[in-house]
Amino acid sequence: MVIADRRPIVDLTEEQARRALPLKWGLMPAGVIPAWVAEMDYAVDPVVMEAVQRALADGITGYPLEREPALGEAYAGWAARHFGWAPSPEAVRPVVDVTAGVRLAIDVLSGPGGVVFPTPGYNAQHGLAGITGRTEHLLEVPLSAERAGIDLDRLDRLFAEGARTLILTQPHNPWGRVFTRAELEGIRDVVVRHGARVVSDEIHAPLVLPGAEHVSYLAIDGTHDHAVAVVAASKAFNTAGLKCAQLVVPSAADRARLDAEPMSRNDSWSPLGVIAARTAYDDGDPWLASLVERLDQQRALLGSLLADHLPEVRMRPVEATYLAWLDASAYGHDAAAAVALERGRVQLSDGASYAPGSTGHVRLNFATSPERLTEIVERLAKAWT
Amino acid sequence: MVIADRRPIVDLTEEQARRALPLKWGLMPAGVIPAWVAEMDYAVDPVVMEAVQRALADGITGYPLEREPALGEAYAGWAARHFGWAPSPEAVRPVVDVTAGVRLAIDVLSGPGGVVFPTPGYNAQHGLAGITGRTEHLLEVPLSAERAGIDLDRLDRLFAEGARTLILTQPHNPWGRVFTRAELEGIRDVVVRHGARVVSDEIHAPLVLPGAEHVSYLAIDGTHDHAVAVVAASKAFNTAGLKCAQLVVPSAADRARLDAEPMSRNDSWSPLGVIAARTAYDDGDPWLASLVERLDQQRALLGSLLADHLPEVRMRPVEATYLAWLDASAYGHDAAAAVALERGRVQLSDGASYAPGSTGHVRLNFATSPERLTEIVERLAKAWT
Repeated sequence: MVIADRRPIVDLTEEQARRALPLKWGLMPAGVIPAWVAEMDYAVDPVVMEAVQRALADGITGYPLEREPALGEAYAGWAARHFGWAPSPEAVRPVVDVTAGVRLAIDVLSGPGGVVFPTPGYNAQHGLAGITGRTEHLLEVPLSAERAGIDLDRLDRLFAEGARTLILTQPHNPWGRVFTRAELEGIRDVVVRHGARVVSDEIHAPLVLPGAEHVSYLAIDGTHDHAVAVVAASKAFNTAGLKCAQLVVPSAADRARLDAEPMSRNDSWSPLGVIAARTAYDDGDPWLASLVERLDQQRALLGSLLADHLPEVRMRPVEATYLAWLDASAYGHDAAAAVALERGRVQLSDGASYAPGSTGHVRLNFATSPERLTEIVERLAKAWT
Repeated sequence: MVIADRRPIVDLTEEQARRALPLKWGLMPAGVIPAWVAEMDYAVDPVVMEAVQRALADGITGYPLEREPALGEAYAGWAARHFGWAPSPEAVRPVVDVTAGVRLAIDVLSGPGGVVFPTPGYNAQHGLAGITGRTEHLLEVPLSAERAGIDLDRLDRLFAEGARTLILTQPHNPWGRVFTRAELEGIRDVVVRHGARVVSDEIHAPLVLPGAEHVSYLAIDGTHDHAVAVVAASKAFNTAGLKCAQLVVPSAADRARLDAEPMSRNDSWSPLGVIAARTAYDDGDPWLASLVERLDQQRALLGSLLADHLPEVRMRPVEATYLAWLDASAYGHDAAAAVALERGRVQLSDGASYAPGSTGHVRLNFATSPERLTEIVERLAKAWT
């Protein structure tokens, strides 16, 4: 997609980042560089920011609308431009955030059978199955597998044992994988054979990097009667705190079930989040193009820094996201993240929070400046080697 | 409490209100005056607004902190000043909104027994018990009762039949009641006898009007091992869309149970909501004092307008909130709210959404200008008589 009038990515200084990102930066002791939670050290797209500031100046601090047709239109238009497939606008429902949307879909649309959660998997969704009153079945991908994918035989067995819902993360966090159409078709075949359901968390779809292409699970034939997707602009536009993600529900019967629920099931999204999402979808392309370009550069830089300074670290190919899954076990540390913090003053995400037992693995957030990323890897080299 | 440096209440023009309050005003056809959903036709306190705007200018659009000790301090200080009783700051946990907080408390802290929900009751919480997987036991207060209170004998019976949690709304919406210490002690005695729990929704506590005094259920002796309160600045400060309420959990054992839950159980609040709440609690008194004064005047005006124009309407005494519960059945309409809209072009809340079968009853929001309230009642008089 050719974009005219690009808007540049603006790096936050450390002082700005400490103010803007209280969780990622604010809690760090002086001298520690954070590369953990999935937030970017970049200023919010000024067009999105201006829309939110205007809404606030108008006094929009109260309840959102119960229906947001303009949000559905905005998402559908954006998805059509970016992915070549889009739901109908009326399939789109606001939710407060992606994890709440995953929960809502399971609570309302899934039967009581267990939930399959592939691991390594997004740490905030570990235990989500239990919150819905369902058994959690971990579908472990061997950490040594070079190209992480869903093991269809094991998925088949878990469904045969009574699981009834798969939480798919597409693109995947923390693997950085973008599943191909063929892989998604393979998943669909197993799901359909068992009459199971899929909740596809696609929050990272806007962050597919050059070389890969996002295919929504809903773009696969024969998925609409058993699947929903949970999408958001918030990961790509750094606006998770504005509180609006979207549930895409292609089946009219599923929509009717959701709409028949009491409003307390799903009424916590913010009107400012709706405005941020609509603006990002409608007007964010000139900024997003710059972001993807920057992340592509950062990915290359990280690869070259690791080759120079930490040649024994194995990095899975990052096809999407700004999160690299690193295997540092060759350097012999039982707790690579703790060592990175203690000796290197770099805060990474501990691999064990994504995959129980994965000591020696870390997730590294490279959405920062080239200078800061260079400093991060140089510090890791000193800490680990 | 004497407040220096009062900040005045600023009425929104219709044009401003249509921009600021998309749910309350935005959906109204031209010529219809909304007096339904609980939002006020007043500009947000400029001190709160400025704090939120400053946060946004700093770029705070991302994740909030996982712990918010300053929020607990702010709430505790505010409660001590206003109610003469306050929890310890560490008892306070952020939640995305009050109804989500009620759900969280039941999900995590209550046993599987049923939930008692007094009716008429806040419409957004009808069906909440079912969402937690529990039976809903309606505890009906006869609509004819002059002074609406909890029927302790019936509460006792419902607990004897297996209910295990009471949702208390204190002050009550839509009754406008502020339960007295003696009433709360009576409730406590029944609850304790059955080993049951209480979730006390106290969102309207800042809006207790002259003549009544708020007593938190947690301020009653012997409640801390079985009760939590859900509180917020958002109702009094018109900031429901900024998404942060607070769960007050006086029992350390209960806090440990909540804190042991996976983060997806409760991580949806917004950092802007935290800032709005902290600012309201720390610096909002000079505005809140003006608000309570205005609402007191509006309450008196409503009484006098009803006496003049609709003498057959019975209004329950409004001890708190800006919501009047009116019995218009003397005028013989089966659906008083529908008639008000059709013939009077006034949007009220239908009584049936708070108490099944309560045709002839409506809830009227009087948090507007004296002129608009006068127009509302004059229109109702034309519609109903």
